Amino acid sequence: MNKTINLNADLGESFGAWTMGEDEALLQVVRSANIACGFHAGDPVVMRHTVRCALAAGVSLGAHPAYPDLQGFGRRPMKMAPAELEAMIIYQVGALAGLAAAEGGRVTHVKPHGALNNQACEDAALADAVARAVSAIDPQLILLAPVLSELYFAGQRAGLQVAGEIFADRAYTDNATLVPRGQPGAVIHDPEQLVSHVLRMLDAGAVVSQNGKVLPATMDSICVHGDTLGAVDSARLLRTALEARGWTVSTLPALRHG
Amino acid sequence: MNKTINLNADLGESFGAWTMGEDEALLQVVRSANIACGFHAGDPVVMRHTVRCALAAGVSLGAHPAYPDLQGFGRRPMKMAPAELEAMIIYQVGALAGLAAAEGGRVTHVKPHGALNNQACEDAALADAVARAVSAIDPQLILLAPVLSELYFAGQRAGLQVAGEIFADRAYTDNATLVPRGQPGAVIHDPEQLVSHVLRMLDAGAVVSQNGKVLPATMDSICVHGDTLGAVDSARLLRTALEARGWTVSTLPALRHG
Amino acid sequence: MNKTINLNADLGESFGAWTMGEDEALLQVVRSANIACGFHAGDPVVMRHTVRCALAAGVSLGAHPAYPDLQGFGRRPMKMAPAELEAMIIYQVGALAGLAAAEGGRVTHVKPHGALNNQACEDAALADAVARAVSAIDPQLILLAPVLSELYFAGQRAGLQVAGEIFADRAYTDNATLVPRGQPGAVIHDPEQLVSHVLRMLDAGAVVSQNGKVLPATMDSICVHGDTLGAVDSARLLRTALEARGWTVSTLPALRHG
Amino acid sequence: MNKTINLNADLGESFGAWTMGEDEALLQVVRSANIACGFHAGDPVVMRHTVRCALAAGVSLGAHPAYPDLQGFGRRPMKMAPAELEAMIIYQVGALAGLAAAEGGRVTHVKPHGALNNQACEDAALADAVARAVSAIDPQLILLAPVLSELYFAGQRAGLQVAGEIFADRAYTDNATLVPRGQPGAVIHDPEQLVSHVLRMLDAGAVVSQNGKVLPATMDSICVHGDTLGAVDSARLLRTALEARGWTVSTLPALRHG
Repeated sequence: MNKTINLNADLGESFGAWTMGEDEALLQVVRSANIACGFHAGDPVVMRHTVRCALAAGVSLGAHPAYPDLQGFGRRPMKMAPAELEAMIIYQVGALAGLAAAEGGRVTHVKPHGALNNQACEDAALADAVARAVSAIDPQLILLAPVLSELYFAGQRAGLQVAGEIFADRAYTDNATLVPRGQPGAVIHDPEQLVSHVLRMLDAGAVVSQNGKVLPATMDSICVHGDTLGAVDSARLLRTALEARGWTVSTLPALRHG
Repeated sequence: MNKTINLNADLGESFGAWTMGEDEALLQVVRSANIACGFHAGDPVVMRHTVRCALAAGVSLGAHPAYPDLQGFGRRPMKMAPAELEAMIIYQVGALAGLAAAEGGRVTHVKPHGALNNQACEDAALADAVARAVSAIDPQLILLAPVLSELYFAGQRAGLQVAGEIFADRAYTDNATLVPRGQPGAVIHDPEQLVSHVLRMLDAGAVVSQNGKVLPATMDSICVHGDTLGAVDSARLLRTALEARGWTVSTLPALRHG
Repeated sequence: MNKTINLNADLGESFGAWTMGEDEALLQVVRSANIACGFHAGDPVVMRHTVRCALAAGVSLGAHPAYPDLQGFGRRPMKMAPAELEAMIIYQVGALAGLAAAEGGRVTHVKPHGALNNQACEDAALADAVARAVSAIDPQLILLAPVLSELYFAGQRAGLQVAGEIFADRAYTDNATLVPRGQPGAVIHDPEQLVSHVLRMLDAGAVVSQNGKVLPATMDSICVHGDTLGAVDSARLLRTALEARGWTVSTLPALRHG
Repeated sequence: MNKTINLNADLGESFGAWTMGEDEALLQVVRSANIACGFHAGDPVVMRHTVRCALAAGVSLGAHPAYPDLQGFGRRPMKMAPAELEAMIIYQVGALAGLAAAEGGRVTHVKPHGALNNQACEDAALADAVARAVSAIDPQLILLAPVLSELYFAGQRAGLQVAGEIFADRAYTDNATLVPRGQPGAVIHDPEQLVSHVLRMLDAGAVVSQNGKVLPATMDSICVHGDTLGAVDSARLLRTALEARGWTVSTLPALRHG
């Protein structure tokens, strides 16, 4: 059995004079970074700095494209034509790829951000547009998508390498979607509980819902957060627990091509 | 004697619902396009469309990065730190490179736009920052810069391939700078006069100033405009005249690598 | 019977170097202007110029707030929290009010633009948020809203003066909504037909649907377009026809307070 | 002798998901707030919230207009035509005035931000454009400008009420300009030293330079900072010291009209 798994996190979410996140600490824990591309966060200077730090930490680079919405941090749903969506994603991935090249690195995966990601997980047509964009810019790019989501399946339809992710700190419904924030138990704050939640799913090879329903899925990556130092501590604890259980924690490209 | 020359123009300057320029007509005349990258004009949809049309016309692709200033069309001087400038240029070139890749093409040159270009022509430190940015993203990129400008020399210092351009419709001072708009004779509107102006300089292998001063320079490309149908007619006339005189009009990469 | 009616149009939709619309001609025809406030079109310079021209033509000033979406011209639906929506509308109305004050004028009405208007016509909660915003900034402001729309009723609920508008060049469904563009007969291009369409509705005191259904409504204003010279000609023809039939064409504040 | 003085600070510099500053604490110390207007910081939601908090604290409202430069926080010099500058300032002041009206308040002063302020302090033509903008939107507005600056004198030329400010934590040159950051002693970090610096100048009725040069000036307001809790502590200490010395600390409008 191949006990290799990836840990990913959203990074580079500062903008200009405003800072956000615990990037430095998180880069010691995760192996792949989803880097904001300027539309919801991350100006070019922040992007380049994040690329440099990620490369120094041996963390693989992913683009984290979003709707053009700095005020809303890319979390407000928009509706655009597929051609607009595709060009917008390619633009952002290309911009990050340019900064990666300037630092001697390479973008190896794409993960949509915020409302774009949420919508692409539920809307097959929108998911296909995302997958087409990724495929158009570089068919070798890995699409990082929630397991069992429309986005995951769209990536497969497009012939992309798809890495399925689960969220370490979120409970699941019986449909393998996230329990909406605000509902009881939606977010798992306790670090020990977070670790057991993840291990239970990895052991089962399946999403395990809040009700105990078991939904088999291929899990390649675990998304952790770094918006607080507490979150980083949980992520660190998770990584330690994974390694203690014999999991190798690797970058996304190593995972797919290893 | 190598009688090969390039014709270039700024293209893709529409934005969203607003259109600008006579791109379709101009693509039949020039051989290299400087494509707006979203900061002063050219949203991702416009950029992708422009790339597609340029490729279809056999016109080589160049990035036309600018200050972040849609309202001012990139024509208002800004002052930013070199690190900000470099990251900003790399971001824009990368974004266009992504859209080019999505259309099966490749960006082969960079030409700064508007105030950024003007400042880089006069300020050696700023010019060096531009050259560093181009070199960082891809040292094979051609820098398209006005002949005898600080930007031209900065490109050479950085070890880049530099293509020297002259402006078909602008008169020159004795310092090889453009006669400022608003001064008598600064802009050459008459098509016949425009053609003789260019031919005189090509024949001399030199910029010929308004006062008749001859400033030897390597001229690789002629910049023409397409903001009006009249301008396109002048450009067409120029191309015809060049070919009648035995000049081969080629793309920038063909010129440099041919 | 009070045969007074207003003609309104969207104006000031240029941005920076990009021009749009036939404002000068249209200002001779309409009596109230919906002026873009910078979020979908209309930078501060364009706004001030439009205010000045409108005042010179005796045309009353209205704010035309929109989603923050220059690329999409405010036509792409977004979803934001009511508090975000309200502050965003107040911001835009206030900005135009400042420029109006600087020119010795005053904003007297508000009409949401594009997707914001469309959504507010169908979604009562969103419409209430729009009405709250208008009321908060100045309860004397007139809300210009499509007749029989949720926005119209929300304005009344908020205690605002509401002016009901019909569209001169659009066919109506049996629910008093616009026949979607793309469906046969949705847009009335023929000037004569446009005029009879409007006169029939005014005579009936009702929206008359494509199927001939008669939906009584208070009609205070007719929206015309100026995106082409043909559209301006139609608007001019409409005004002449209205006056020939004894209608007084007045500004919105004159209509409401007259 | 009228021992009344104002304390002012820049507030509302958060944007969307990014927070900045210690506004809550600072509002208990200062009497006038310079509120970011969306161009360098402060989206409409932040602006409205800041207005509400300032009003609740009895702090008078000022607009803090800036160049359109979120990434650079309005600190990067730009060059625009006077007409562009004026419209841009009016737009921002108007936007804040709208949000103030929505909260039952009123904008009573204007203070340019960052690079715009710095340039207006040195460039008389630019300063005149700023003063014209303020005067155009409302000639009753107080212009808050550094003592002995070009902006101060431009305000007087324009017939505006001008309030002269000094900076609590900055040393002055013999020309009454700020000692540039980076030079020794430019910024006064020690709270006790900051207090004596201010008291010395108030007692002298003059700017006292780093070299001890005494430059008589009318001082109406002291600018304090709130970017750190330490800065807020210094500001609190200053206010206590002022009141202990018999100074009444008042809002700008109370100061001017009182």
